[in-house]
Amino acid sequence: MRILVIHGPNLNLLGRRETEIYGAADLATINKSLQTLAAQEGAAVECVQSNNEGDIVERIQQAKGAFDAIVINPAAFTHTSVAIRDAIAAVGVPTIEVHLSNIYARETFRHHSYVAPVAVGQISGFGPTSYTLALRAAFELVRK
Amino acid sequence: MRILVIHGPNLNLLGRRETEIYGAADLATINKSLQTLAAQEGAAVECVQSNNEGDIVERIQQAKGAFDAIVINPAAFTHTSVAIRDAIAAVGVPTIEVHLSNIYARETFRHHSYVAPVAVGQISGFGPTSYTLALRAAFELVRK
Amino acid sequence: MRILVIHGPNLNLLGRRETEIYGAADLATINKSLQTLAAQEGAAVECVQSNNEGDIVERIQQAKGAFDAIVINPAAFTHTSVAIRDAIAAVGVPTIEVHLSNIYARETFRHHSYVAPVAVGQISGFGPTSYTLALRAAFELVRK
Amino acid sequence: MRILVIHGPNLNLLGRRETEIYGAADLATINKSLQTLAAQEGAAVECVQSNNEGDIVERIQQAKGAFDAIVINPAAFTHTSVAIRDAIAAVGVPTIEVHLSNIYARETFRHHSYVAPVAVGQISGFGPTSYTLALRAAFELVRK
Amino acid sequence: MRILVIHGPNLNLLGRRETEIYGAADLATINKSLQTLAAQEGAAVECVQSNNEGDIVERIQQAKGAFDAIVINPAAFTHTSVAIRDAIAAVGVPTIEVHLSNIYARETFRHHSYVAPVAVGQISGFGPTSYTLALRAAFELVRK
Amino acid sequence: MRILVIHGPNLNLLGRRETEIYGAADLATINKSLQTLAAQEGAAVECVQSNNEGDIVERIQQAKGAFDAIVINPAAFTHTSVAIRDAIAAVGVPTIEVHLSNIYARETFRHHSYVAPVAVGQISGFGPTSYTLALRAAFELVRK
Amino acid sequence: MRILVIHGPNLNLLGRRETEIYGAADLATINKSLQTLAAQEGAAVECVQSNNEGDIVERIQQAKGAFDAIVINPAAFTHTSVAIRDAIAAVGVPTIEVHLSNIYARETFRHHSYVAPVAVGQISGFGPTSYTLALRAAFELVRK
Amino acid sequence: MRILVIHGPNLNLLGRRETEIYGAADLATINKSLQTLAAQEGAAVECVQSNNEGDIVERIQQAKGAFDAIVINPAAFTHTSVAIRDAIAAVGVPTIEVHLSNIYARETFRHHSYVAPVAVGQISGFGPTSYTLALRAAFELVRK
Amino acid sequence: MRILVIHGPNLNLLGRRETEIYGAADLATINKSLQTLAAQEGAAVECVQSNNEGDIVERIQQAKGAFDAIVINPAAFTHTSVAIRDAIAAVGVPTIEVHLSNIYARETFRHHSYVAPVAVGQISGFGPTSYTLALRAAFELVRK
Amino acid sequence: MRILVIHGPNLNLLGRRETEIYGAADLATINKSLQTLAAQEGAAVECVQSNNEGDIVERIQQAKGAFDAIVINPAAFTHTSVAIRDAIAAVGVPTIEVHLSNIYARETFRHHSYVAPVAVGQISGFGPTSYTLALRAAFELVRK
Amino acid sequence: MRILVIHGPNLNLLGRRETEIYGAADLATINKSLQTLAAQEGAAVECVQSNNEGDIVERIQQAKGAFDAIVINPAAFTHTSVAIRDAIAAVGVPTIEVHLSNIYARETFRHHSYVAPVAVGQISGFGPTSYTLALRAAFELVRK
Amino acid sequence: MRILVIHGPNLNLLGRRETEIYGAADLATINKSLQTLAAQEGAAVECVQSNNEGDIVERIQQAKGAFDAIVINPAAFTHTSVAIRDAIAAVGVPTIEVHLSNIYARETFRHHSYVAPVAVGQISGFGPTSYTLALRAAFELVRK
Repeated sequence: MRILVIHGPNLNLLGRRETEIYGAADLATINKSLQTLAAQEGAAVECVQSNNEGDIVERIQQAKGAFDAIVINPAAFTHTSVAIRDAIAAVGVPTIEVHLSNIYARETFRHHSYVAPVAVGQISGFGPTSYTLALRAAFELVRK
Repeated sequence: MRILVIHGPNLNLLGRRETEIYGAADLATINKSLQTLAAQEGAAVECVQSNNEGDIVERIQQAKGAFDAIVINPAAFTHTSVAIRDAIAAVGVPTIEVHLSNIYARETFRHHSYVAPVAVGQISGFGPTSYTLALRAAFELVRK
Repeated sequence: MRILVIHGPNLNLLGRRETEIYGAADLATINKSLQTLAAQEGAAVECVQSNNEGDIVERIQQAKGAFDAIVINPAAFTHTSVAIRDAIAAVGVPTIEVHLSNIYARETFRHHSYVAPVAVGQISGFGPTSYTLALRAAFELVRK
Repeated sequence: MRILVIHGPNLNLLGRRETEIYGAADLATINKSLQTLAAQEGAAVECVQSNNEGDIVERIQQAKGAFDAIVINPAAFTHTSVAIRDAIAAVGVPTIEVHLSNIYARETFRHHSYVAPVAVGQISGFGPTSYTLALRAAFELVRK
Repeated sequence: MRILVIHGPNLNLLGRRETEIYGAADLATINKSLQTLAAQEGAAVECVQSNNEGDIVERIQQAKGAFDAIVINPAAFTHTSVAIRDAIAAVGVPTIEVHLSNIYARETFRHHSYVAPVAVGQISGFGPTSYTLALRAAFELVRK
Repeated sequence: MRILVIHGPNLNLLGRRETEIYGAADLATINKSLQTLAAQEGAAVECVQSNNEGDIVERIQQAKGAFDAIVINPAAFTHTSVAIRDAIAAVGVPTIEVHLSNIYARETFRHHSYVAPVAVGQISGFGPTSYTLALRAAFELVRK
Repeated sequence: MRILVIHGPNLNLLGRRETEIYGAADLATINKSLQTLAAQEGAAVECVQSNNEGDIVERIQQAKGAFDAIVINPAAFTHTSVAIRDAIAAVGVPTIEVHLSNIYARETFRHHSYVAPVAVGQISGFGPTSYTLALRAAFELVRK
Repeated sequence: MRILVIHGPNLNLLGRRETEIYGAADLATINKSLQTLAAQEGAAVECVQSNNEGDIVERIQQAKGAFDAIVINPAAFTHTSVAIRDAIAAVGVPTIEVHLSNIYARETFRHHSYVAPVAVGQISGFGPTSYTLALRAAFELVRK
Repeated sequence: MRILVIHGPNLNLLGRRETEIYGAADLATINKSLQTLAAQEGAAVECVQSNNEGDIVERIQQAKGAFDAIVINPAAFTHTSVAIRDAIAAVGVPTIEVHLSNIYARETFRHHSYVAPVAVGQISGFGPTSYTLALRAAFELVRK
Repeated sequence: MRILVIHGPNLNLLGRRETEIYGAADLATINKSLQTLAAQEGAAVECVQSNNEGDIVERIQQAKGAFDAIVINPAAFTHTSVAIRDAIAAVGVPTIEVHLSNIYARETFRHHSYVAPVAVGQISGFGPTSYTLALRAAFELVRK
Repeated sequence: MRILVIHGPNLNLLGRRETEIYGAADLATINKSLQTLAAQEGAAVECVQSNNEGDIVERIQQAKGAFDAIVINPAAFTHTSVAIRDAIAAVGVPTIEVHLSNIYARETFRHHSYVAPVAVGQISGFGPTSYTLALRAAFELVRK
Repeated sequence: MRILVIHGPNLNLLGRRETEIYGAADLATINKSLQTLAAQEGAAVECVQSNNEGDIVERIQQAKGAFDAIVINPAAFTHTSVAIRDAIAAVGVPTIEVHLSNIYARETFRHHSYVAPVAVGQISGFGPTSYTLALRAAFELVRK
């Protein structure tokens, strides 16, 4: 079981920026906790981060055949990228959308997601736990 | 650790209606799986279902002091009940919003939740797994 | 042939309130005329009224297997209840939406019905005759 | 008792087009069933069809004094014709709006009717039965 | 100096319908008063009425070279006809828009005119006087 | 002079929840101050609270003939209940809408009231004083 | 017969500003032509201009009993002043709204007039001729 | 205790205009009743009226230090004046918004108030009683 | 291979009106070039123009069985005619929508087409070349 | 080189109100710093403040020929005054719009400026520095 | 004659994804058919694909002087990229917008194109034929 | 004092494209004038341009600790990039938004900026002077 985890723009700053919104954990810590959980389940997780929409589109395209599921936190691209949505719809790899913060308790423009309608589901608001929940959801999906 | 699970209107029909949207599991099965998971974690789960907005408001009010967290699938009331939102905001018990189906892939009026801005977070689209993920999220919340 | 007729909130006041909008007939008179028409067609009609959304949801749920069709005047809940809509969609009993007054000649918020898209059809504006037309429509539906 | 039945644009194709939406009956069959029902009630029905907004406006104008009620299925003109609305309001002949399909379960632009606020009432979604119900409603109206 | 006066749909009913909105004068009376005023100014007026959008489009097209100005009361087509707007823009004959009633004191959908942006100006609310004012405005326009 | 005071959903928590918004007084204290003021004026006040829309609809219905005026704080139902609006319009007992907090300084969805257009007037933003002002207004209304 | 003519803000600049929109005539010239026309009809015209909303409100208030009709070009206040609208509605002196330019062929925010619904009628787009047409309309109104 | 009462545009016409909306009492009567009530409470009331937005802004500015509270009926400026809102927010004198009529039962543009979010509270719909209630509310505010 | 070409309202004026928008070619020239291209491909083209919505609806209806494809420039009816849309959907003859000008570079109301969702595709902005491209597209469609 | 600086409503309170939004500098201090900067550049600055829309309109009108540029902080009138916009457009003196606070980080209604489209440019968010930047921009404009 | 063909994001997946929407042809096949058609016309075509908005902006910038026309299928960027729009407007190379699917028969957010208003024209809905039609249109454009 | 100047997409074309909107100066000239001004103030300026959203996000991230302020002209990304907004909010380096043209006098979609609410302030409409004003503003900010 192979899972691709994609972190969108500015998530490389995690733990160093706006910790009252995004929490104190940095990206390496989150990735390590995902690796640990995956190992327990006999699964492999690959984690990538990019600030570039085109790169993310291509990572999603390459996931076809290489990964069983995608966990993606599209961050700012959630609200602006039809290209990422189209990539997810095109490759057909089951995808789970994740957010650290509760996007429905923030600015109105963050309430709309281009990705949600083509994802299997969405998890938002639990900080780093959002990712571990998503990984568990991915395991369930793949097992079915 | 005590968790209250609230199922909103029409969820008593689960497994008997529109199974292409909501899946084949019935409510008893879901509740049992939540009990099992809670037992593993040394926690107690109480599950209630109601088709009545006022009943749900009162269950939430009574949760104060009696439960450490609430997992709620407000179903149709997600989109129409300010009273449930106000109850959650009033009692201050951390609350997690759950949906079986991906509400963002359905009719537009299901994209808006009155509950989401006062919940800790939201999980939607994973069928019965949405609940078990929410329960795990509740455990994490309470432990912190 | 068994038909369930559901009258929504405030319809118990019929004949006593705003008669320039709703007409002079009271609910008992309407129910009696429906019983009479049903008897002529060899059908049975059961009439219920409730001011409570949850009660109406449950009456609809219980109609499954017990009634061949539902005639419902959701009154105020027409414009606010997703729960009633979901109940109708869930039970799969063919349902006809009825209004005494012409809702399209009244306030803008009365032009939208949550129920209409899941009903077979809608009849509005004919006073008590709206109900007898709906009952006839129900007979036709069931016969097919 | 004389009733004018007006069928709007494209209804001459009935039974030959999109039968999953509009049903298998053709216009002649519908008209005949209306004639039969009218005969039983000692009433006369005249049925006309036109694809031309101006023609329909003039038929409505000529109904004044010649007919006791109008049953109209404005079809596509429902959503675009202020001229037909104004004609109905001008002649003062009580008018009933009819639709074969449930217009509230179709595209959003079909949910708005220019005719509804000046009609006595609206019946939609029952296929050819919509017309016979409307004819019965017309009989009731004229008798009062 | 030749002026074409075009009366839109349902204006043939003038004086016989909704006189509280449109006044008691019929169309012949209005046309005669326009003829009289034109005669005083040494001008010729031709008056036409149609309930058909296509006819009005063609009358406007034929006005090119035959008339010095158009006075039009588009009635219901004011709010729905892009074709009449395009015809006016195409022929380049200066056109004045007229309304008997104050369209800004009526239903919201009557506040928007497709014709106004391509007309020289608009006069509304003065009953039959709206027409005589428009005719005077046309004389001024042509003289310049 | 008999006045019915209706407190809507979650107002039973008053003084225990979000005191920075709703103030420190609990419902019993407010009710007592209303009783005292009424006694001074030789009037009787009955106070009820419910979290259930249907119950409130029925309390309003029963007020007909039994009370001279209603003071209602519909709380969350202000923004979602057409049924309460219809009940107020139906019974014809003069009704005053009250809010503890200034609803126009809060979330946008709290700016709209279904009740306001059928109430005599609205008082919002003065904490418990909103109720005593409303009671005084009720006395004035009944005396006229 | 006494007519009050009110020119709104910036109209004192007429003939000196944006002549491609407003024409070359200055305000004195327009006022003189109105005086001349009035004299021919045995009427008196008083012309005032103000850049101040409050002044215009008071001129309208003082017109009660002193003038038989008001001709007003509210200019920029057309789109922003509820106070002028309320003054017109309050004094009950018949009022005609005038615009030099065709406001419907300009920016969208100029398409809405707060004054129009309480005016008898509106004339726009004819340059200084708009005023003489309005004066003639006023004569007609007063004579009736 | 000193209270400033500000009456906005057109309120000087009170009792002489649209009495079906605003009632038969004139401004002097209302002011006198406020003086009387204030005298009973050992407070002083100063009443001013202006049709000019700038004047009202300046009266509010001068209230700082001179008055303990402001009672304002902004009338038409309620819906259009950001300057009055900013003045109230700037001076920090607690302010109560008053309306004679129920603004929520009138035209849609009267439902929005720029003043409400910066006022302590709002009272509307009780005729002259709205002012006396506001004065009582002011007394309560100042006492706390 | 038989193709029906329908030109909508005002296109008979082509080459004589607004040539900066629509180009200098007249309709006869366009039709001739289409005939020539069709002849090269061994196909037959019939060209009709109408200013009347009802006529166009009927031409589309008659195309069933008589033509293999329709090329239509609905002109002004693009934005207002549900009847033409319904006719295209009903007859099932593959239809291509054509515009001379780039409708997306013009007024906002020209950006919406009722026809587009039921057409195979849309070509806009190339002047008369739009038609020849559409004819080629029709040939491709029919050959498949 | 002569520059007119206009301060809109409530800016006379600067330094005394809401200093967390507008800063601690008062208007005299700002004006002095502008005088100093102008003197360095051999230019003259005249500063005026008004709470009255009509006064500001007239100051702008009088600037024609008397000043080379206008620097204006329209404050609350930014969002409500078409009259100020029209005055700026009419006089043709190049005008720069200034705001102390970042209007795009405040309430939504402050994001729209009637003045911006007719100004040369806009500077917002720098406190008193906004004015000195605007003055420098004015010097640049006039020199070109 | 040199034509640049730009394929936007995810089009590299063509023929492998959602073939019911985009058809079975892959990008190489489309490019080859364009090369063939160009060769017949003595023209040269260069085809590029990118998933990166910035790359596409730069390809458009470099087209200036190097190509006579651009054919672009902006895919997902159609709806989100102002940068591509600005690049097209900046370089002044005539550009044709192409879509494989009928974007007006898909989700609402796909109906709006930032590119269309700066393109010469748009062709959508014909599958790979959309490209060959666009190439022919480009030849026509360049020849003029 | 170190200032980072970021030029967004298509600004590398400056002086070569649409000079009626953006002016004749090229980017090198602007950068040189900024260097000169900085040198006078003893500050250092680094200028970068990119057509790629991801690159700009990363330049902003790297500014933390390396620069005292950012001056950014986000160009097309102003209206579409939440990622740039989030980067600015995350790094906490004070940022000034600059536009050459007056964005409020252009297409409506250019009136909204995602960047403005997280910037210190915005300067638009002064051509290259916008940048020098922004640099001066940056100097002021850093000095405080």
